[in-house]
Amino acid sequence: MRYADIRAYRSEGFIGRYQRLVRDTVIPYQYTVLRDEAEDTEKSHVIANFINAAKALRGEDIGDGFYGMVFQDSDAAKWIEAAAYSLACFPDKELEKQVDELIDIIADAQDADGYLDTYFTIKDRDRRWTDLLEGHELYCAGHMTEAAVAYAEATGKTKLLDVMTRNMEHIYRLFVEEGREGIPGHPEIELALMRLYRYTGNEHALILAKTFIDRRGTDPEWFAKECRRRDWSVWGSDGKDADYQQSGAPVREQTDATGHAVRAVYLYTGMADLIDKDATLAPACERLWDSITKKRMYITGGIGSSCNGEAFTADYDLPPDTAYCETCASIGLMFFASRMLAHDTDRRYSDVMERAFYNTVLAGMQLDGKRFFYVNPLECDPGISGKVSTHRHTVTTRPGWYACACCPPNAARLIMSFGRYAYGEDEDTVYAHMYAGGTVTFVNGCILRCDTSYPHDMDVRFTVEKAGSAKRLAVRIPAWSESSTLTADGRPVTDLRKGYAYIDITDGMSIVLTLDGMPHWNCASPRIPTIAGMAAVTRGPLVYCFEGTDNGGDVAGLTVDTSKDPVVSGHNEELGGCVTIDAAAMRDEDTDELYVRSLRQDPVTARAIPYYTWCNRGETAMRVWMRKR
Amino acid sequence: MRYADIRAYRSEGFIGRYQRLVRDTVIPYQYTVLRDEAEDTEKSHVIANFINAAKALRGEDIGDGFYGMVFQDSDAAKWIEAAAYSLACFPDKELEKQVDELIDIIADAQDADGYLDTYFTIKDRDRRWTDLLEGHELYCAGHMTEAAVAYAEATGKTKLLDVMTRNMEHIYRLFVEEGREGIPGHPEIELALMRLYRYTGNEHALILAKTFIDRRGTDPEWFAKECRRRDWSVWGSDGKDADYQQSGAPVREQTDATGHAVRAVYLYTGMADLIDKDATLAPACERLWDSITKKRMYITGGIGSSCNGEAFTADYDLPPDTAYCETCASIGLMFFASRMLAHDTDRRYSDVMERAFYNTVLAGMQLDGKRFFYVNPLECDPGISGKVSTHRHTVTTRPGWYACACCPPNAARLIMSFGRYAYGEDEDTVYAHMYAGGTVTFVNGCILRCDTSYPHDMDVRFTVEKAGSAKRLAVRIPAWSESSTLTADGRPVTDLRKGYAYIDITDGMSIVLTLDGMPHWNCASPRIPTIAGMAAVTRGPLVYCFEGTDNGGDVAGLTVDTSKDPVVSGHNEELGGCVTIDAAAMRDEDTDELYVRSLRQDPVTARAIPYYTWCNRGETAMRVWMRKR
Repeated sequence: MRYADIRAYRSEGFIGRYQRLVRDTVIPYQYTVLRDEAEDTEKSHVIANFINAAKALRGEDIGDGFYGMVFQDSDAAKWIEAAAYSLACFPDKELEKQVDELIDIIADAQDADGYLDTYFTIKDRDRRWTDLLEGHELYCAGHMTEAAVAYAEATGKTKLLDVMTRNMEHIYRLFVEEGREGIPGHPEIELALMRLYRYTGNEHALILAKTFIDRRGTDPEWFAKECRRRDWSVWGSDGKDADYQQSGAPVREQTDATGHAVRAVYLYTGMADLIDKDATLAPACERLWDSITKKRMYITGGIGSSCNGEAFTADYDLPPDTAYCETCASIGLMFFASRMLAHDTDRRYSDVMERAFYNTVLAGMQLDGKRFFYVNPLECDPGISGKVSTHRHTVTTRPGWYACACCPPNAARLIMSFGRYAYGEDEDTVYAHMYAGGTVTFVNGCILRCDTSYPHDMDVRFTVEKAGSAKRLAVRIPAWSESSTLTADGRPVTDLRKGYAYIDITDGMSIVLTLDGMPHWNCASPRIPTIAGMAAVTRGPLVYCFEGTDNGGDVAGLTVDTSKDPVVSGHNEELGGCVTIDAAAMRDEDTDELYVRSLRQDPVTARAIPYYTWCNRGETAMRVWMRKR
Repeated sequence: MRYADIRAYRSEGFIGRYQRLVRDTVIPYQYTVLRDEAEDTEKSHVIANFINAAKALRGEDIGDGFYGMVFQDSDAAKWIEAAAYSLACFPDKELEKQVDELIDIIADAQDADGYLDTYFTIKDRDRRWTDLLEGHELYCAGHMTEAAVAYAEATGKTKLLDVMTRNMEHIYRLFVEEGREGIPGHPEIELALMRLYRYTGNEHALILAKTFIDRRGTDPEWFAKECRRRDWSVWGSDGKDADYQQSGAPVREQTDATGHAVRAVYLYTGMADLIDKDATLAPACERLWDSITKKRMYITGGIGSSCNGEAFTADYDLPPDTAYCETCASIGLMFFASRMLAHDTDRRYSDVMERAFYNTVLAGMQLDGKRFFYVNPLECDPGISGKVSTHRHTVTTRPGWYACACCPPNAARLIMSFGRYAYGEDEDTVYAHMYAGGTVTFVNGCILRCDTSYPHDMDVRFTVEKAGSAKRLAVRIPAWSESSTLTADGRPVTDLRKGYAYIDITDGMSIVLTLDGMPHWNCASPRIPTIAGMAAVTRGPLVYCFEGTDNGGDVAGLTVDTSKDPVVSGHNEELGGCVTIDAAAMRDEDTDELYVRSLRQDPVTARAIPYYTWCNRGETAMRVWMRKR
């Protein structure tokens, strides 16, 4: 299967609602933020930085003309990328005009040699490429390259693609032709270069991606040496923790997912995207996938346990209340999954991709699309969360924007490109990895319609409106579904491999999939100290949580009875019509003593809501993992 | 009741064993550390600093002659204090000679004006008293004052007392007579000045203590202002967090125990020690006591939840695995309890004093007296504890010494002075707050003998060898004892007030107390999110824990059955003959998946040991709070 190679996806249902929300609310709001016109948030200065960089290139005096994080340019890139996906689904002249204007501004900020980065262009051009550890020049170039490809795909316009091709050639000259040392401090450009290569066929992009990946970890001291070569730095990192930089060993020898979680999964995505060119990367990618998904991942698909460095920690260190679980890290995990799927159609990748999306990624955004979580804990305790120093990162209300604003635009571009993760194709097969209502048009000419209100309901009907040159449809049967039925024109489907059902398709064929819609209790491995012996509810791909709002204010005093199955109790219209689940439980009596010999327990019905809907009704307690009896 | 006013205590039994251990092992070992002669640890340079300070005073060039923490002098003070208590119990000419030699060295390091602090004397005498926030000059003066009083009490020798009286007069001149601003960054001197005052009657000590306490918090900005007045600092603190410094409000208006836990309880001890001179301090002391013991204390008597600043955090934030629970903080909590008892004979103080001692304080020291914990978590997970950044402070093996070595000598002096906490007296009453085997001689002439192997067994026999001028014995009946019997010469005792039984005593009287020796389950308040719904075993004053060593390596997968009472299962001779307790439990099957729908559970008997004995048989998992079914 090729990655993200469908022609178009017109969404309906659950995904359609989210895509319209991003189109109508998130993209316009984020544009006002980029332009410093949002009223309720700090100025981002993103576009102003590009304008000032252009002035600096013309020799105009702009004073202290850079504002924000060193990687601020990437917010513009992610916004353009989200807008591009939106335009692909929903043509919109006004939005396209805004993007074109922004691209003009960006193009003006490019240096004569192809260099493009407002931080160094404004502050000190002599320092270009000398702080790869923290400078984020390659990271920003990667994001803008992704935006350029996406915008070209959506509109056919190539101005930004030309800018970023010149930029890539500049980097290629330096790091390949001229033999300049170094690797990206924050991997990202590797996967972006692969997108550029696959879209344009430019071999330099492929060689550059492979160069950065092959070099990585061959000298674990490299970043520390780079630090010692300069008398300044962006943040003061010493570069000594090579594992934090995923450079402690050559990538083919790496075994554990380490360090900054977003950097890690972006790197692994780039590695996986190269497997078809270099199969020697496959074993490492599989080991790193297992390290994450078998030892270092929350049930919500969240990764990166610790706020210290936004990082992976140790196997089975998955505390619910201090979890970091950056939204971007789960987005990156979806990237990694999608590239692994491209070389091995196995539901172990798509099951995780779906888990990350429907739980951590969606929880990153308020239901109204106006506020965002950067951090996605599995437990919230008002009075502690967001307040004490160990829990300061687990804020109890989604902020509107962040000084470090990577997550909101990242969620926007992911949601708008959902079709690329839900569907895939190769010469004779089309794939349904996830169940996304609407119509998808494949490059091979197949047109597939999907009718479903998934994940609210578990019935999915695919109609082959046109088979095109596709001979087969491969539909994922998720591991979480204990009982599934799948028929093609009424006949049971029997060709099952690695969790995918393969169906020979013909025009007009109707494929009906019914998945397990029962709520289930889940246990944590006894190897996870913080949640061993506890229980969590899931239904379909959705992890559930218990909020104080539905449970008399307090959830810590609830003990669930896992001898009784949880049951669907209805829909919550305030929370987008999601399915609510009730569970038999006992509530500890309150006491103002810290420790007592016994506590009376009263039977109660505890109500759970999908994790992605939490924190949409004010500050309240929340927990995914419940004590059980 | 007066605080710590007994004449002598000759210990036997459990306490006697600990005191002999401190005498035979801890005090000699710590002396080699002070002299930089310990082979297996880093040099402390404690005595060398005093020698170098004396040289500096004589104008000799000593180069970079200070080594260690700014408060390194206090290690010498605490060692002298421990040695003094040891000499009071076990006369020892060799040890006394060592102390006298050290006192000579210390006396030589005193400046002509009475100033005594090696850090500033060696490094920069012009900076004296200009960094009260971090400089620890008043802290070190306090500890040395305590040592001076203790050594005078034990031996009648007053050389160090004279040194510290001159030092006090120097500080009095500056801060009272000359009106210098400021309060101690690390409270300690307040309680030490009260000891000096009570021993010598020197009113300047009383006035100085009261001055520091009355001033505190009247200007919450004071430390921040002090920082702004200088262009250097010891550590770089900005002094802006007034609550961290217990100076956010005048002490009489403070309500919550805040900030650095040791500083807090040392301050509160000083405040409580002043109540008999200024009763307006009593309500604040009682509020702060309640804040700690009703909202911010672990079941082990540990306080200070967070490693960030070794500090109190928020009500009910008591995570077991990342707990800080500094040994010194629990020692300070015992100090605070002892001073509160002095003005109100209520078991709510002595119950906590005992809880802190038998659990956190004793756990701070390895059973062989050779290694020490600074941090006392309630859960240890090898692979995570001591390894990941959020758990780096919860090391899995007691180190021999620390760069910041406050706890080992603090534990030594506490254990050697245990009689002062166990017993008390006023004109006509002697008090038994705790049950410490041996013979105690009171100032009022009463000689009381106590025969017990408590806390292993729960039978305590007091014999009034001589009543002296004491008319009554007050014996604490702990709240944890669900069934207690107390007889005096065979007759039941009925005069019970605030958890104390009052007995009219006569020479030769025999008082027999039998306390509840059954193991019990305990519940955590549902207000404590991390342990709500969990269970811990206690027996008598001892909190128990489950170690991997006794439980097949793993304790996270155990779920205890609290419907069955835990039972005494025997004694563990390797752990000093402590009583072991068995509990019915289920063990989750192991799985290499993180999350599964169900786990088989097999019935097992789980074994618990007293918390104070944990980590004496190698690195292993441990937990106090268990999931229950």
